[in-house]
Amino acid sequence: MSELRYSTSMSLDGFVAGPDQSLENPLGIGGQLLHQWVVELAAWRRDHGQEGGEVNASSAVYERENAGAGSIIMGRNMFGGGPGPWAEDPWQGWWGDDPPFHMPVFVLTHHARQPLELKGGTTFTFVTEGIGAALELAREAADGKDVAISGGAEVAKQYLAAGLVDEIGIHLVPVLLGAGVRLFDDSSAGIGLEQVAVVEGPGVTHLTLRTVR
Amino acid sequence: MSELRYSTSMSLDGFVAGPDQSLENPLGIGGQLLHQWVVELAAWRRDHGQEGGEVNASSAVYERENAGAGSIIMGRNMFGGGPGPWAEDPWQGWWGDDPPFHMPVFVLTHHARQPLELKGGTTFTFVTEGIGAALELAREAADGKDVAISGGAEVAKQYLAAGLVDEIGIHLVPVLLGAGVRLFDDSSAGIGLEQVAVVEGPGVTHLTLRTVR
Repeated sequence: MSELRYSTSMSLDGFVAGPDQSLENPLGIGGQLLHQWVVELAAWRRDHGQEGGEVNASSAVYERENAGAGSIIMGRNMFGGGPGPWAEDPWQGWWGDDPPFHMPVFVLTHHARQPLELKGGTTFTFVTEGIGAALELAREAADGKDVAISGGAEVAKQYLAAGLVDEIGIHLVPVLLGAGVRLFDDSSAGIGLEQVAVVEGPGVTHLTLRTVR
Repeated sequence: MSELRYSTSMSLDGFVAGPDQSLENPLGIGGQLLHQWVVELAAWRRDHGQEGGEVNASSAVYERENAGAGSIIMGRNMFGGGPGPWAEDPWQGWWGDDPPFHMPVFVLTHHARQPLELKGGTTFTFVTEGIGAALELAREAADGKDVAISGGAEVAKQYLAAGLVDEIGIHLVPVLLGAGVRLFDDSSAGIGLEQVAVVEGPGVTHLTLRTVR
């Protein structure tokens, strides 16, 4: 059965992005520290057209996350934010002509727009009918594989609160940002979780959790 | 060199105690979930005069924490809170006649009081001169072993913010309390940490971190 999963890097004090996010700095102040473990990996660099990089205990975690997914759901900011409806701002997102997703991506938005087919197998489909409709489309497109929520935190929170997420991956990074965007807030209180795997990587701890209903 | 360490159980959303703490429920609502991993251990039960219990990957973590310490610092609430100065409230704390500490304990308080010597090697000394004075006394009493901060979070935060803590142990429990007492807040932003060990226990992940100056 196709599952819905979400994974994110998180600081030890619970932030998935730093404070003062902006178009220029979508990760917020200090937010890049959360992703250092992954951008150093040879596997991540390969997927982003770069050479070199490291192979370590985090590599298998990264590979597993990507191998299992057949489609992706993301928020509009993750696709590439920007003010106003699409008609006034027809850009193609943060990701360039050849995005690193290589699979169908469903973008939650309030502004309808025609699908965008880019190089390398990435198609962006814009969904205005809410999280349930997006999940239905994404499951169909995943063709038996899992659906991955790929950010941002607001999208993940909605799916979590609706009880639709099966697996959560937390890449816990030992930094203290002090402020920023939390994944877990009072809307997540009482969501039951079971710890199913823990992997120690260099400068990061990978936790795999399953929701318990 | 004698080091200062603090360890605590913490929920995945960053709380070391649940909301609505009271004299009747010092752990706050849901707070007991944070300590389930430890009270199930045979080693913890032995130290608290109980039989049975489990031996698992968390046992060594628990034993290491206790073996290395020669003295303890705690806040007044951890000793056994209560309204008013001691003279009006001369009780002996939460811990009974034979507390589970078996070493010198230094209690931070604003209310001076004579030391309290109980069974099993536990003496409570009440320190009114602040965290620096308490650490000095505790180091002397530890006789070359480490000094452990044993709660509550407010005491640990003060030592952290003063840059006096050498090692932090986080027993991360996959529950979401939604509210309560945080160990890390904006006062901890920017404290440098290095992840030195990760141990997967049943229903808990034990992180050992060192502060970087």
